[in-house]
Amino acid sequence: MAETNQTHEPVRFETHPDRYVHWRLEFPAEYAGAVARLVMDIKEERGLRPGYPLKLNSYDLGVDIELADAFQRIRFEHPEVKAVIVTSGKDRIFCSGANIYMLGMSTHGFKVNFCKFTNETRLYLEEMSAESGLPSLCALNGTGSGGGYELAIACDDIVLVDDGSSAVSFPEAPLLAVLPGTGGLTRLVDKRKIRRDLADAFSTIAEGVRGKRSVEWGLVDESPPKAKYEDVVKRRTAALVAGSKRKAFSKMAFGPLEVKRSAKGADYKYVSIALDEKARTATLTVRAPSGMEPTTPEELGKAGSSAWCVQAFRELDDALLDLRFNQPTIGVVAVKTTGEPAAVLAVDAMLAKYKDDGLVREVTLLMKRVLKRMDMTAKSFFALAEPGSCFAGTLLELALAADRLYMKDSGDEPVSIATSPMNGGAFPMGNGLSRLQTRFLGAPDRVAQVLEQGPFDTAAALKAGLVTFAPDDLDWDDEIRIAFEERAAMSPDAMTGMEASLRFAGPETLETKIFARLSAWQNWIFQRPNAVGERGALTLYGKPERPEFNWNRT
Amino acid sequence: MAETNQTHEPVRFETHPDRYVHWRLEFPAEYAGAVARLVMDIKEERGLRPGYPLKLNSYDLGVDIELADAFQRIRFEHPEVKAVIVTSGKDRIFCSGANIYMLGMSTHGFKVNFCKFTNETRLYLEEMSAESGLPSLCALNGTGSGGGYELAIACDDIVLVDDGSSAVSFPEAPLLAVLPGTGGLTRLVDKRKIRRDLADAFSTIAEGVRGKRSVEWGLVDESPPKAKYEDVVKRRTAALVAGSKRKAFSKMAFGPLEVKRSAKGADYKYVSIALDEKARTATLTVRAPSGMEPTTPEELGKAGSSAWCVQAFRELDDALLDLRFNQPTIGVVAVKTTGEPAAVLAVDAMLAKYKDDGLVREVTLLMKRVLKRMDMTAKSFFALAEPGSCFAGTLLELALAADRLYMKDSGDEPVSIATSPMNGGAFPMGNGLSRLQTRFLGAPDRVAQVLEQGPFDTAAALKAGLVTFAPDDLDWDDEIRIAFEERAAMSPDAMTGMEASLRFAGPETLETKIFARLSAWQNWIFQRPNAVGERGALTLYGKPERPEFNWNRT
Repeated sequence: MAETNQTHEPVRFETHPDRYVHWRLEFPAEYAGAVARLVMDIKEERGLRPGYPLKLNSYDLGVDIELADAFQRIRFEHPEVKAVIVTSGKDRIFCSGANIYMLGMSTHGFKVNFCKFTNETRLYLEEMSAESGLPSLCALNGTGSGGGYELAIACDDIVLVDDGSSAVSFPEAPLLAVLPGTGGLTRLVDKRKIRRDLADAFSTIAEGVRGKRSVEWGLVDESPPKAKYEDVVKRRTAALVAGSKRKAFSKMAFGPLEVKRSAKGADYKYVSIALDEKARTATLTVRAPSGMEPTTPEELGKAGSSAWCVQAFRELDDALLDLRFNQPTIGVVAVKTTGEPAAVLAVDAMLAKYKDDGLVREVTLLMKRVLKRMDMTAKSFFALAEPGSCFAGTLLELALAADRLYMKDSGDEPVSIATSPMNGGAFPMGNGLSRLQTRFLGAPDRVAQVLEQGPFDTAAALKAGLVTFAPDDLDWDDEIRIAFEERAAMSPDAMTGMEASLRFAGPETLETKIFARLSAWQNWIFQRPNAVGERGALTLYGKPERPEFNWNRT
Repeated sequence: MAETNQTHEPVRFETHPDRYVHWRLEFPAEYAGAVARLVMDIKEERGLRPGYPLKLNSYDLGVDIELADAFQRIRFEHPEVKAVIVTSGKDRIFCSGANIYMLGMSTHGFKVNFCKFTNETRLYLEEMSAESGLPSLCALNGTGSGGGYELAIACDDIVLVDDGSSAVSFPEAPLLAVLPGTGGLTRLVDKRKIRRDLADAFSTIAEGVRGKRSVEWGLVDESPPKAKYEDVVKRRTAALVAGSKRKAFSKMAFGPLEVKRSAKGADYKYVSIALDEKARTATLTVRAPSGMEPTTPEELGKAGSSAWCVQAFRELDDALLDLRFNQPTIGVVAVKTTGEPAAVLAVDAMLAKYKDDGLVREVTLLMKRVLKRMDMTAKSFFALAEPGSCFAGTLLELALAADRLYMKDSGDEPVSIATSPMNGGAFPMGNGLSRLQTRFLGAPDRVAQVLEQGPFDTAAALKAGLVTFAPDDLDWDDEIRIAFEERAAMSPDAMTGMEASLRFAGPETLETKIFARLSAWQNWIFQRPNAVGERGALTLYGKPERPEFNWNRT
């Protein structure tokens, strides 16, 4: 399939429940505020881009951006909520998954980034349950197929109405010659622990499985007849509410991000992106707090989403997504920080001291998710520690998430970096380890050492294994320039595959399995003529012609 | 890149040290028989196929087939050996990796299968060390680049001569726009636990790293100057010999496999392959032993490689490789067994009773490797248990390795399957679990239950969760026919990606990471125009033109 540069309007990721097109965020009276209900009611003609009506509650990126926003709002703005219901506003259909025509029209790069974003959103749903006491139930009031069923199995509990026709299904492989790539295959065998032979059969039955058999196979948790369906949903939701370990805190409303965008990049309050399109590089700068920051959870609640620890990381999240979707030719990102290390370390001290507070915990989890977004971004990140930089504590995580850290060995103006208690496990990567643990897999004693020591000047940081290269004043400019030029000259695909292999040493988890094993295979399949060629199944979906396959097994 | 059906002669996998072209298997006098030395001395003009001289000790599949054979021979035919040295017979070059021109000329499917086989061979080298007390040392008497260094890091210990020019390197990404895909990236961070930022730098420095820095970065274990190189190799090899836990046993020589091949398939003594090219299916039949089999390790030693447990599994290994390389259009394989279950269970009883014997252990490990070869074969396997079939003990593993097991619910002629102690962990999969444990990840109690019970008739097997579908006499023929037709009609690529995701539930290991994360990304890259397009780096290697890249990051 020909790769074309995208000529569309840039994708924007900010939204608000008042502006949702496809979802309704409800707080049904019967649960007295303890339940948020997300109702998917997709407007066919309001796709993010023209050309593909979103029939049968199928989704595109715009739908998922709203969903991700809703999860965030439920967590911060509705602390009274103790469980989430995901359901559909349409009769007899829950969701038919990602829109096939949208996929067929998309570039390879867009498909891959779309799947990555939707995967992240579903993992956030699971993280809400695991980390924030917000379990979820999928109320399948109709068929959930493909990405629809994948959304269901990201929930803790699944109820499928047994009405003689509603089913769950993965028609991707049999009908489209691609995979259920939003975690579906992995969650079948690794989360729901469905027997591999049944998972194999299920994933090849285009029409899916319904009623009693869907329960027997472990695909759903209960499949009551229509007359009892509402009662079962209520009973199971009430059980989730009763089991919730959500902590009480005062709600924090998320204000809009203020950003000035231009052809040269974007400036947020604490984050800037400066693009050099010709060099295929960008500079991502994150600034330390400059004024008073909250020193207690109460002050944090009062400061709201303008607190640095919230705003800077929301801005970073937005900037990373902008880089992924809207700047495909940027290959290498310089990661810089500025400001007072003491200001960051003071924020970290507050976060560490009050880590058991409900709101502090939510903020820390938000920061964790943003840092994971960086781990999963297919750009080369080279962090640059120079005089005036501020790689301390949570901002040091940016350097630890980067592929390399260059630190200037500067005689006149010393450079330093510093750890804080927040580097000790508050921000685990997808592999379940902290970035320090992952870095020092071969020398685990060093993790405690660098957490106890510091700040580190260049020589000490190099000795401690925190720094990749430390050119001196004379060499710095040339060495950095050459490093960026060389990296930007390498094949983007090889760099993506290389970074995906080197960033995640150590254990694999459901999450890393989804992003590596499943997504890597899906990306491969998204290149194969059997799916995306002129006669491929994805290309010909909905057309009268039958796909033609090359029968060679690879 | 256009996919073409291969028109080459079939690849054959049997060889013998007497016929090695590229390797010398030596037993140097200075180690008094305790060391096998494998000397790579590749004959440029003797590539497996014409068109690519194997310069600079670069390898193709033929070279690796000899290496795999050598490992097998060392294990079975040289029980006195306690350590292995891998080195080169050429001056100043150890090995420059897989031959680039060979890769450039190969179909996508061949590239993928070639990499899979070479990955298996390197994992066998590690298994020799971990399971058989046969540690290995790579004596880099010259540069090891790409697959050359990947072979080195599959060894336990690496000595690199410090002669001012010899280096280790991964030039794949910077020069060829592909990955070091034979486990290289994974082993850097997960086996040698090299810091990810140093691994990143190393993997982009085409000229590599040598001498002191190669030791500092953890790339090699020692890098002595030329004058001390031989002494260091001897000292470190002696240490490996001294630490070896190899068990003593009488050697078992591997005789040639006898096989009748035709356009319709192949018949070995215990294994048959029957091809139906039009239907894109094959039937793989494994027969139980029919005569007297050894009941003690001594008898096993006397019987030699004609003992069923050795011969049947060597035949199965050969048949699986034949299916992979020579039958690319076969998509679905029916797995059948015939013979007396009691005969297999008697063999299993011997293997279980004498599991601590050196030879019995080697045989069991061989069987394990063959079963893993099946797990890793990109064909759909449907096992068929019918009257007269023999899915008992070790042969039941074939059904557990299959994607589905169909068992006939036959009124007149009952069908049964049976477990043996050998299903209890003697044959772990790449994920470290037994096939029963992987199958019952969601119901771990069942593992012990099915090991204690049995034999199982169809109803009992279905209830125990061992069977996918159990059609009765009336439905059997139609249901099986339709199942095979449907499977064979699906996109081969989608099936490969699906099976790779469903077969390996549970933990990930170095091995599964290599085959899933790393190989899946490499397979993706092997499809990308930046590598294999007309202007791709792999295509243009050695030509005056510079590659042209699409700069979009995916």
